[in-house]
Amino acid sequence: MQARSGRSVTSKVLALLDAFGPTEPALTLSELARRAGLPLPTAHRRVAELVAWGALERGDDARYRVGLRLWEVGSLAPRGLGLRELALPVMEDLYEVTHENVQLAVRQGLELVFIERIAGRHAVPVLTRVGGRFALHATGVGLVLLAHAPAEVQEQVLAGPLDRYTELTSTDPKRLRRQLAEVRRVGYAISDRQVTMDALSVAAPIRGPDGVQAAISLVVAYDRADPLALAPLVQAAGRVISRALSGPHGR
Amino acid sequence: MQARSGRSVTSKVLALLDAFGPTEPALTLSELARRAGLPLPTAHRRVAELVAWGALERGDDARYRVGLRLWEVGSLAPRGLGLRELALPVMEDLYEVTHENVQLAVRQGLELVFIERIAGRHAVPVLTRVGGRFALHATGVGLVLLAHAPAEVQEQVLAGPLDRYTELTSTDPKRLRRQLAEVRRVGYAISDRQVTMDALSVAAPIRGPDGVQAAISLVVAYDRADPLALAPLVQAAGRVISRALSGPHGR
Repeated sequence: MQARSGRSVTSKVLALLDAFGPTEPALTLSELARRAGLPLPTAHRRVAELVAWGALERGDDARYRVGLRLWEVGSLAPRGLGLRELALPVMEDLYEVTHENVQLAVRQGLELVFIERIAGRHAVPVLTRVGGRFALHATGVGLVLLAHAPAEVQEQVLAGPLDRYTELTSTDPKRLRRQLAEVRRVGYAISDRQVTMDALSVAAPIRGPDGVQAAISLVVAYDRADPLALAPLVQAAGRVISRALSGPHGR
Repeated sequence: MQARSGRSVTSKVLALLDAFGPTEPALTLSELARRAGLPLPTAHRRVAELVAWGALERGDDARYRVGLRLWEVGSLAPRGLGLRELALPVMEDLYEVTHENVQLAVRQGLELVFIERIAGRHAVPVLTRVGGRFALHATGVGLVLLAHAPAEVQEQVLAGPLDRYTELTSTDPKRLRRQLAEVRRVGYAISDRQVTMDALSVAAPIRGPDGVQAAISLVVAYDRADPLALAPLVQAAGRVISRALSGPHGR
């Protein structure tokens, strides 16, 4: 069932979903067609099917948005809301005792995806968005996920490019490699002003039956941070979630 | 591009996604094929494409689960995480001052979908799941959403069947109709032991540019509930989120 263009219908449908992004949450039909690389009539037909199912919704402004039905199905992803449901009570406890930002992330390919975030109202502002992506080599959660990623993933990331966010970001592969070994040795990661100059994060691994599956962190203002005091707190939280992950449900 | 069976390829792909549910988060290929009503070879081909894109993930147990990529795209739904991002700080405030369960829901057809929930550790247990569905005629959020739904939606729900969860659930259309009129008049809904005999919820509408788009509620233990004291609190929270929804971003 390959279409004449050589692309399968499935890939065209998925390309329509790929057209949306954090900065493009609402698209007209012609924008959708262009971004998906589809002729307008093809896009029109597929979009109508996606709307009928609820994967897309059409607003009064004639723009299409990702539909609630897709969010519902997406909420069944064990690495998304499934993990989040297990982790949230622990994240809330960590928030209650620190009133700092608490973040939960998993690795997706060569990046991380933020699964949950509790943003302290008076804590240092963070730029992360639930569902948003970020590089692995800069944040605390990213360093934990990278340190425990398969060797080939580490090599690909180390091969670069390693974006520089601040003057303290590890963009030297040798230095980063040493940093990752240290993360594995001590059991936590500290990202000291490597994303923004006003913040520091302390992250610890969350282990499932198949190894490290996620990471949890506290992101605090640099000037009031005491990373060595925070590390055991974050590690303990990571262990509680790890136990839940390896529990009877065996997610 | 209709397949020989009369079903379009798009509908087959979507049927594979429909196969998953809260009680069926992990399926083998043959379970997937059966639930989607597809021949095994067809299912195999489509599933491979969905795995390649990341909509599904295959575990070491040879079962398929909803993939993180689908969760990422779903997180772009304005009625899902978009609404949730705006509402969460207000929900957290409501939780801090009450330490009760706080829920956020939207209507999807003739049901409601829970978008977010803060479960009080010592509050009355609630059965809701983020991404889960429930009937409109029993819960506080449901009554608010139903009271402000288009007339044809109200008529369809009133035409029944109206499931009975407790002896206090409104299953009489006449009584329910009066209840909905009252919800519109006073600006909030009280579900008094209509879902479980130990709980009461107080809900208020969240309005966007196109009318009521969501509802927020507190769910408290019946024996310590003072609904008339809680109502203004929930209404105020609804108004703060409404203002955010109608803000410059114009979601």
